[in-house]
Amino acid sequence: MLVVMNHDATDAQIEAVTAQIEAMGYSARPMPGKQRTTVGVVGNDGRVDEGRLQGMPGVRELIAVTRPYKQVSREWCADDTVVRLSNGTEIGGVELAIMAGPCAVEGEAEILEIAHQLRAMGATILRGGAFKPRSSPYSFQGLGVEGLIMLARARDETGMAIVTEALDPEGLDLVAEYADVIQIGARNMQNYPLLRRAGRSGKPILLKRGMAATITELLLAAEYILAEGNPNVILCERGVRSFDSHTRNLLDLTAIPVVQSLSHLPIIADPSHGTGVRAKVIPMARAAVAAGAHGLMIEVHQDPPNALSDGVQSLYPEQFAELMGQIGVIAEAIGRDLVRPLPGPVVSGT
Amino acid sequence: MLVVMNHDATDAQIEAVTAQIEAMGYSARPMPGKQRTTVGVVGNDGRVDEGRLQGMPGVRELIAVTRPYKQVSREWCADDTVVRLSNGTEIGGVELAIMAGPCAVEGEAEILEIAHQLRAMGATILRGGAFKPRSSPYSFQGLGVEGLIMLARARDETGMAIVTEALDPEGLDLVAEYADVIQIGARNMQNYPLLRRAGRSGKPILLKRGMAATITELLLAAEYILAEGNPNVILCERGVRSFDSHTRNLLDLTAIPVVQSLSHLPIIADPSHGTGVRAKVIPMARAAVAAGAHGLMIEVHQDPPNALSDGVQSLYPEQFAELMGQIGVIAEAIGRDLVRPLPGPVVSGT
Amino acid sequence: MLVVMNHDATDAQIEAVTAQIEAMGYSARPMPGKQRTTVGVVGNDGRVDEGRLQGMPGVRELIAVTRPYKQVSREWCADDTVVRLSNGTEIGGVELAIMAGPCAVEGEAEILEIAHQLRAMGATILRGGAFKPRSSPYSFQGLGVEGLIMLARARDETGMAIVTEALDPEGLDLVAEYADVIQIGARNMQNYPLLRRAGRSGKPILLKRGMAATITELLLAAEYILAEGNPNVILCERGVRSFDSHTRNLLDLTAIPVVQSLSHLPIIADPSHGTGVRAKVIPMARAAVAAGAHGLMIEVHQDPPNALSDGVQSLYPEQFAELMGQIGVIAEAIGRDLVRPLPGPVVSGT
Amino acid sequence: MLVVMNHDATDAQIEAVTAQIEAMGYSARPMPGKQRTTVGVVGNDGRVDEGRLQGMPGVRELIAVTRPYKQVSREWCADDTVVRLSNGTEIGGVELAIMAGPCAVEGEAEILEIAHQLRAMGATILRGGAFKPRSSPYSFQGLGVEGLIMLARARDETGMAIVTEALDPEGLDLVAEYADVIQIGARNMQNYPLLRRAGRSGKPILLKRGMAATITELLLAAEYILAEGNPNVILCERGVRSFDSHTRNLLDLTAIPVVQSLSHLPIIADPSHGTGVRAKVIPMARAAVAAGAHGLMIEVHQDPPNALSDGVQSLYPEQFAELMGQIGVIAEAIGRDLVRPLPGPVVSGT
Repeated sequence: MLVVMNHDATDAQIEAVTAQIEAMGYSARPMPGKQRTTVGVVGNDGRVDEGRLQGMPGVRELIAVTRPYKQVSREWCADDTVVRLSNGTEIGGVELAIMAGPCAVEGEAEILEIAHQLRAMGATILRGGAFKPRSSPYSFQGLGVEGLIMLARARDETGMAIVTEALDPEGLDLVAEYADVIQIGARNMQNYPLLRRAGRSGKPILLKRGMAATITELLLAAEYILAEGNPNVILCERGVRSFDSHTRNLLDLTAIPVVQSLSHLPIIADPSHGTGVRAKVIPMARAAVAAGAHGLMIEVHQDPPNALSDGVQSLYPEQFAELMGQIGVIAEAIGRDLVRPLPGPVVSGT
Repeated sequence: MLVVMNHDATDAQIEAVTAQIEAMGYSARPMPGKQRTTVGVVGNDGRVDEGRLQGMPGVRELIAVTRPYKQVSREWCADDTVVRLSNGTEIGGVELAIMAGPCAVEGEAEILEIAHQLRAMGATILRGGAFKPRSSPYSFQGLGVEGLIMLARARDETGMAIVTEALDPEGLDLVAEYADVIQIGARNMQNYPLLRRAGRSGKPILLKRGMAATITELLLAAEYILAEGNPNVILCERGVRSFDSHTRNLLDLTAIPVVQSLSHLPIIADPSHGTGVRAKVIPMARAAVAAGAHGLMIEVHQDPPNALSDGVQSLYPEQFAELMGQIGVIAEAIGRDLVRPLPGPVVSGT
Repeated sequence: MLVVMNHDATDAQIEAVTAQIEAMGYSARPMPGKQRTTVGVVGNDGRVDEGRLQGMPGVRELIAVTRPYKQVSREWCADDTVVRLSNGTEIGGVELAIMAGPCAVEGEAEILEIAHQLRAMGATILRGGAFKPRSSPYSFQGLGVEGLIMLARARDETGMAIVTEALDPEGLDLVAEYADVIQIGARNMQNYPLLRRAGRSGKPILLKRGMAATITELLLAAEYILAEGNPNVILCERGVRSFDSHTRNLLDLTAIPVVQSLSHLPIIADPSHGTGVRAKVIPMARAAVAAGAHGLMIEVHQDPPNALSDGVQSLYPEQFAELMGQIGVIAEAIGRDLVRPLPGPVVSGT
Repeated sequence: MLVVMNHDATDAQIEAVTAQIEAMGYSARPMPGKQRTTVGVVGNDGRVDEGRLQGMPGVRELIAVTRPYKQVSREWCADDTVVRLSNGTEIGGVELAIMAGPCAVEGEAEILEIAHQLRAMGATILRGGAFKPRSSPYSFQGLGVEGLIMLARARDETGMAIVTEALDPEGLDLVAEYADVIQIGARNMQNYPLLRRAGRSGKPILLKRGMAATITELLLAAEYILAEGNPNVILCERGVRSFDSHTRNLLDLTAIPVVQSLSHLPIIADPSHGTGVRAKVIPMARAAVAAGAHGLMIEVHQDPPNALSDGVQSLYPEQFAELMGQIGVIAEAIGRDLVRPLPGPVVSGT
């Protein structure tokens, strides 16, 4: 529930409402706005006794939040959330945010080389896994903290922001020291201790949709992060399980406008995992932009056939350049700005 | 299997190959090309004894068709099939083909009015169901032959081509008398007697993907039509069954580039059925074009809240106009031409 | 809606109610019962004006049918429907009905041999396809009417009832001349002209659940048959589409108790198509019986590796005998009778 | 790969093989058997150079493991794994293991009462969540360590073994102090740090299949546990995501025989989560036993309508008693023993 205060409500009135909510056994979230303050009520699984709030001084109206999720809902916040990174990239606004890079960090020279290339092509966020969740315990599991250090080096050299995955609560604190955006992968979408720790980190979180998660479940997972006080959540559609084996997953692009109508959080698409087939990444990346995605996450590798993981779905750098050209025009066609490259000359780092 | 003849193979040599194929118990399909003639072998479920064809005079090479479908495959025909309608619309070429109209024909005045509007906005093919497959036997089942007559009237007045559905083999012959394109609906994708009759009709066929059909099954269904000698098949992605209830179906746009790599047949998208929600039709129509669809099928109704069927997913005419503006720019961005409106002034029919 | 008459309502009162319903534009279905007559109202897609029926002489109460399907619902008929075949087999009662036989009829000697074996093992209904719906137009499509004649011969020799599939409305009339039960296959579950013709045939119909049909859709498909006046419908769970490739389909056994709570129609299971793997047929057949199925349909072939279709999922006769032993005990455990073999000595026919 | 030693291979020969495997960069797992010792090779993602092992003294043969998983495969171990609990219950042998109890531990009196009832009815393992993974952050999350203490009290009083869920690596160590079997829930099936910690705990692990996990993925998840040296893994089928809303999940009973053919690990079924509907739990529990499950996990609550979670799918104690009667007979029918109740009188604890 939301308690909307009058535009001239006093601080004391707002505090009284907050105290009353807490006396009722819930948590209160005062949200000052331009026109007026709204106080959110969370922690109520079912019905709230409205009578005790209805008549209080300064209260303008009570708004029920009809969805199982609250703070992530459009009812709670009508304006789009824009997540701002330290290098100036915004996710959720008019511009498209482009995250690109290899599936896994494989070595320092490799990650620096691809970072410089991607930055020059217009990407502003570098992806690369240091901790890799792999179906088999015998597959390459990532370089770990060494990989994080290499990513930090790439950030220093290129000015790109870094997004990389955390696999468990302890590891998340470590990742938070190096990354600008912490990724929670599809397999961990309902790993609640990890979501809570992500909420407490305060860092921007990229939350990927689970393999067969409904949109309601995705939004409830995001609610775990917001419930800990972290509003900087970026959702990511990356394909759901289906019955056809021509692609690795079924990229559900309709999730983009559906999420945008239900929630104020930004949503991007990952057509690399969403298709699992290099030749389908470009058309589906274009389609995601046309469907209204706030950004893209794309796997790019200098030498896909020899990548340590996901080579079959990684673009060659030239293909990424071609893609960037096409999506710029599509973005414009639907009233978004072109992707703005990072300012200043690219510093040569090698 | 394909038997590729030398560029200077004589008619007698081609006939001898054809005769040999038939002597082996298969059917032969001679396909004269610019450079040389190719003879396709169909009717073989498994292996063909190549030795009896390999050494024959004039034979250049034998090409195995590795897919379960043959005549619809890229191996059988490398060039895109372009289906040409009598009003000049082409499906499968550079231009986008736009099919629009109400779910069902509801009356003559209504269909004529919407046809004139749609034609003026750039659609060149009018959709409208006369025979409606409905989940419940107690729902409106369409106007039947009266509906077909109304569609023909709309064609005469506007110059638009007509696409409408046939539900059974006998009905197909009736529909063929009135329609330019005969639709086989998702529920009938594996109705083989209907597919065979569609093949024998010689008319362009719009074949919709079944509710949970794999792409291989879709292409095998098309093969039934081509196997009867009708190459004019247009495939249509219209959403598959999924586990999320926010949309009626899950529109599988990756099917578009997947089909285009496996087959030479054109493929369009139906975001109206693919989403089942009016507000999601425009973004997904844009996405389908960006993914490379050869066209769109869109439900449009003058008064969606009072439509006899599918009102909840039908666009208002103004929304359709807005959509046409957006997809023109996207089409251009990916190297397709804008949709070309029908030539000449719109004849006023009412 | 159902109009329940008083136990002493006169024929004239019932006729008056019937006339009133038809004057309102609906169809009336008077159903005389032991205690009282009920008149069903069909043809109403939405709301019925109750006021015009409420006060009529002899009317006891009006019962709304809350499901989209009506005549198939438990609300319409509380007692289980029992379908009785001419050889005495009942489907829907206490006994398990066992349908067994090859996927396709392959020759007279073969079908007679397997029929005698199956009958001796306790099956009372012989399955075998004469018209086969095949994904590829180049696969074996069945022996057609020759196959029907062979099935009739097997019935004459063994006393077994015959179940075989019809693919189109015209073919259905032909099948009806030979078969005791007409099968509508999964691919045709929503082939409405075929369902209507099945309804008009008056014959028992075995309606298989579609590849990705919801249970509501299955019951609505059955409603098409009952709406034509044919109450003898047997439903069949045969697996739905899923994402795991270890089995051909995912056998949804929960559909059995779900259907039994929603509908009075009998439901059997087909673990042969439901799994597509011979070694899984026996455990899943047992499981289907334990879940409460009214019967089973099992593919059995003398020589599965050389079967013309579905050999990989066909049991060897010895395996079928083993299965029959196991399910008898399970049936007893849940309060059903053992399967009763056909009376009298088996007539030797070869 | 498996290196099978001769029956008279010496310890020195076995050690030499082990050393050679490790010199090649892999891990060696010597497994002494009745007839001979086998040494497993793990850590190899792809091919092993057989030449270096082939000729070594005492080596009888090399067996390739063709599946992506190794130690969980039938090829690695032909005999069924039997997991033995301290109270004498065996899972994976001839007897059915019955786990029953409330979804969540709600209070000491409640858990003791239901434990005594369940024990008297024949269950030997008590389930109850202390840490609950809930879709919404505002739902009841379990009593935590207090719940664990109550479960331990119930074990002391009844002699039942305890199974309860762990949600994160740290929590797993805590759960391991109290539980006999540690549950890894469906949402955490691919939470690899949690699986590794479970492997290192040495405790029996109940691993539930993920919401849309393939059977290969389930077995690979189990491989993570075995790879840490813990062979005591019990798999659990609990329903997968589907498109029909009549049940919460689609219980995939075919997974039982499929897993049994691919792996030596025991597999049980959870029809409570698998259906989500009380009235469907009994038929599906029977079906699971008939399909060959090694046991069942059933939610039972004294007062389901007032349960703090999952009340709608919890059985009443009387229903559980009825179920126990039915499955005993079915177990016998398929050659399994009846469930053996815990020995000795039930100690009254309240």
